[in-house]
Amino acid sequence: MTLASTLKHRRRQLAKHLDTPVMLWSGQATPRNFPANTHPFRSSSHFLYFAGLPLENAVIHLADGRLTLFMDEATPAQALWHGPSPTRTELAHKMGADKALPLDDLKHFAGEVATLKVQDSATAAQQETILNRSIPMAKQSQEQDLALLQAIVQLRMGHDSYALAEIRRAAGVSVTAHKTGMAATLLGERLGEGLNEAHIRAAMEQVIMAQGMTCAYNSIVTVHGEVLHNNHYCHPLGENDLILADVGAETETGWASDITRTWPTGGQFSSTQRALYNVVLAAHDACIAAAKPGVEYRELHLLACRTLAAGLVDLGILLGAPDDLVDQDAHALFFPHGVGHLLGLDVHDMEDLGDLAGYAPGRSRSDRFGLGFLRLDRPLQAGMVITIEPGFYQVPGILADRGNCDRYATLVNWDRLAQFADVRGIRIENDVLITEDGCEVLTADLPTAATAIEQLVGNR
Amino acid sequence: MTLASTLKHRRRQLAKHLDTPVMLWSGQATPRNFPANTHPFRSSSHFLYFAGLPLENAVIHLADGRLTLFMDEATPAQALWHGPSPTRTELAHKMGADKALPLDDLKHFAGEVATLKVQDSATAAQQETILNRSIPMAKQSQEQDLALLQAIVQLRMGHDSYALAEIRRAAGVSVTAHKTGMAATLLGERLGEGLNEAHIRAAMEQVIMAQGMTCAYNSIVTVHGEVLHNNHYCHPLGENDLILADVGAETETGWASDITRTWPTGGQFSSTQRALYNVVLAAHDACIAAAKPGVEYRELHLLACRTLAAGLVDLGILLGAPDDLVDQDAHALFFPHGVGHLLGLDVHDMEDLGDLAGYAPGRSRSDRFGLGFLRLDRPLQAGMVITIEPGFYQVPGILADRGNCDRYATLVNWDRLAQFADVRGIRIENDVLITEDGCEVLTADLPTAATAIEQLVGNR
Repeated sequence: MTLASTLKHRRRQLAKHLDTPVMLWSGQATPRNFPANTHPFRSSSHFLYFAGLPLENAVIHLADGRLTLFMDEATPAQALWHGPSPTRTELAHKMGADKALPLDDLKHFAGEVATLKVQDSATAAQQETILNRSIPMAKQSQEQDLALLQAIVQLRMGHDSYALAEIRRAAGVSVTAHKTGMAATLLGERLGEGLNEAHIRAAMEQVIMAQGMTCAYNSIVTVHGEVLHNNHYCHPLGENDLILADVGAETETGWASDITRTWPTGGQFSSTQRALYNVVLAAHDACIAAAKPGVEYRELHLLACRTLAAGLVDLGILLGAPDDLVDQDAHALFFPHGVGHLLGLDVHDMEDLGDLAGYAPGRSRSDRFGLGFLRLDRPLQAGMVITIEPGFYQVPGILADRGNCDRYATLVNWDRLAQFADVRGIRIENDVLITEDGCEVLTADLPTAATAIEQLVGNR
Repeated sequence: MTLASTLKHRRRQLAKHLDTPVMLWSGQATPRNFPANTHPFRSSSHFLYFAGLPLENAVIHLADGRLTLFMDEATPAQALWHGPSPTRTELAHKMGADKALPLDDLKHFAGEVATLKVQDSATAAQQETILNRSIPMAKQSQEQDLALLQAIVQLRMGHDSYALAEIRRAAGVSVTAHKTGMAATLLGERLGEGLNEAHIRAAMEQVIMAQGMTCAYNSIVTVHGEVLHNNHYCHPLGENDLILADVGAETETGWASDITRTWPTGGQFSSTQRALYNVVLAAHDACIAAAKPGVEYRELHLLACRTLAAGLVDLGILLGAPDDLVDQDAHALFFPHGVGHLLGLDVHDMEDLGDLAGYAPGRSRSDRFGLGFLRLDRPLQAGMVITIEPGFYQVPGILADRGNCDRYATLVNWDRLAQFADVRGIRIENDVLITEDGCEVLTADLPTAATAIEQLVGNR
């Protein structure tokens, strides 16, 4: 499928779900410390889905399966400073657009159209001016905008072959990035270089950048895996530390990947690290084995929880029957987040729509400790791409919480747990395509087994 | 000087220039494709100058040399997900603040205070709410805000020892990044790897990232140096190409560096490339030799123009007397931008203030082709850090422009110029501190001479 035929198919599908014409804005770069020094531009994901190209300051109009592209040609001054760029007509041809017009003509199309708010406020203000109405955050859309949102959720939930090819490309580069991170750990250790987290992050992101891709999200590369959103990279790699690296590439047209691996800085897991790694791996493998159309993602999450609980019972850390422990959320002491999320043009796909993509109609977040952070609660369907990412963490804020200590006093063998002090955080995350009869791990080229990881990192 | 004593000195200086109390906001991270997936946070430079630490969602109040820090403590949920962070009191101590209060107390300090608008619109809206007035773009400040702006320009124009130490650190990392880019070119060439621009960029930025720093601006790494703002990295390195790399690191607390080098992909300049490189180098060296307190930066620019013109006359490309050629802006056919800019917390320091920092009071941009893009028109003073970055480019949009062809028909030997077709763009850029009796090149560890560059890249 070419880009043009893919986009044509997507907009015909949209027309099946929606009568109203649609206008989607790509957005514009936002200033970093002064207006001319911007963050790298990222087009709106909804725009990218129907326009395919990461154009800045562009708008598309979709009606009855027809596409009109609105953008201005580069001025002579822009051409002077930014070099030659394709004309509007050339871009429209690449997209298979039916028409291409300057932005000034937008106003003639601004009748009763549906839209979704972009992320940057300068463009959001333009949206409101042109449509002459207020446009709330996308997740609070109403009337025709809500209908558009629902149609988009339907479409973007199942990936076409063009999207899958892009996600596979991103996944392939992410796999190489992780292998490179492991190799950098080994090399640093062999050379006695005294590396820190920033060195490993840089080695990994270099791979992504060298392929002309960007990171789909701010990387986590840390020896403090128990800090779940760790965007600092300042700790030295200790001799017996585990490195948790959550790093994923995004293609030029916005398609994401999302991989986490956890490896020992010295190349070899300690016996306690290996034991807990294998518990997390068992939870991961159980989910992969169970994932197929019709299965509820929530059930995969609970399967991961039960597998983790069973493993922790085997290790003597949790006390009781795994099912009972999960019913009491005891697993969440060590696995407080959900087992994964949708993946596509966003690393948490369509999260700008709140839970309207992640949660099936009529469902909402649980207030249970062990379920509230679940980002996806829908039956799986062929064409979906999800992540599977169980973990084990010793988060001081959870384990030292007096309420938790009281509540779980008899379910945790705290003395036994203390013997696993060399494990702060472990996560294993892969990107998984739901197929007709099961699933395919798109990131399978990067091994998950402890022994294979050790081989990659390199035994001493 | 510690950070605390440095900041105390800065706010005492501010108090000398300004009676009004001041409130400065740090800003907050802006969304990339959905609210939880943000661009890396960058504090406002004005905040950083007086607060020293890259805090998010923080405000400082400055009055009579006293500093009050406003920020909220991390919530238990934030601590859970983002790990432990210093308390407000600890941060205030580090900054030498006199008091530390929650954000909710801001309203009690919001009387007649001066401020400057931050870059992100969410925080800008908070500024307006708290101060209960509209706040225009910083460069359009009025009344007490304009007085603050003018005081800040005075202060930030001359760097203290703490700032200089930071700029030197950034410069040192940038130097290593450029050397690494050259080494990557050599290695790729030796291994026959078929590199493209993205590979070289990645090799360079990896160095910056590995030191825990960020890029001060979007890197330019290109074999099409004639495209002045080239943010694409997709071209393969051709055998006889020149790579132009404009890459600079920024320290954790925001201090910038800015270096450009141009080197041959094959390790050795052709005779035509070497000849033009040496013309640009002569212009660079002339500026460095002339830079000292009291000299007008505009005169340095014109010196670079005359030196370039003389070199191009010597090569037979321009025809006439160098001074006459510059008077007619003929140099600008090949050197259309200014010779540099201020450098500090911003790569174009204080450019959010428009030309109010770059241009001395009463001066404004020239409409001359050869002067209009000059970003700095002030007498040099000790403590200023500037860039010196002459260049030579064959920009099709300029050279093929009919007006230019007519106007400069008799001043350019177009046939001779055609012999230099293997030079698309050359720039040599260093960061220069103005000292009491001259200047110091802060980036001198990276050689500029063609032969030294060839040694670094590696002859075949």
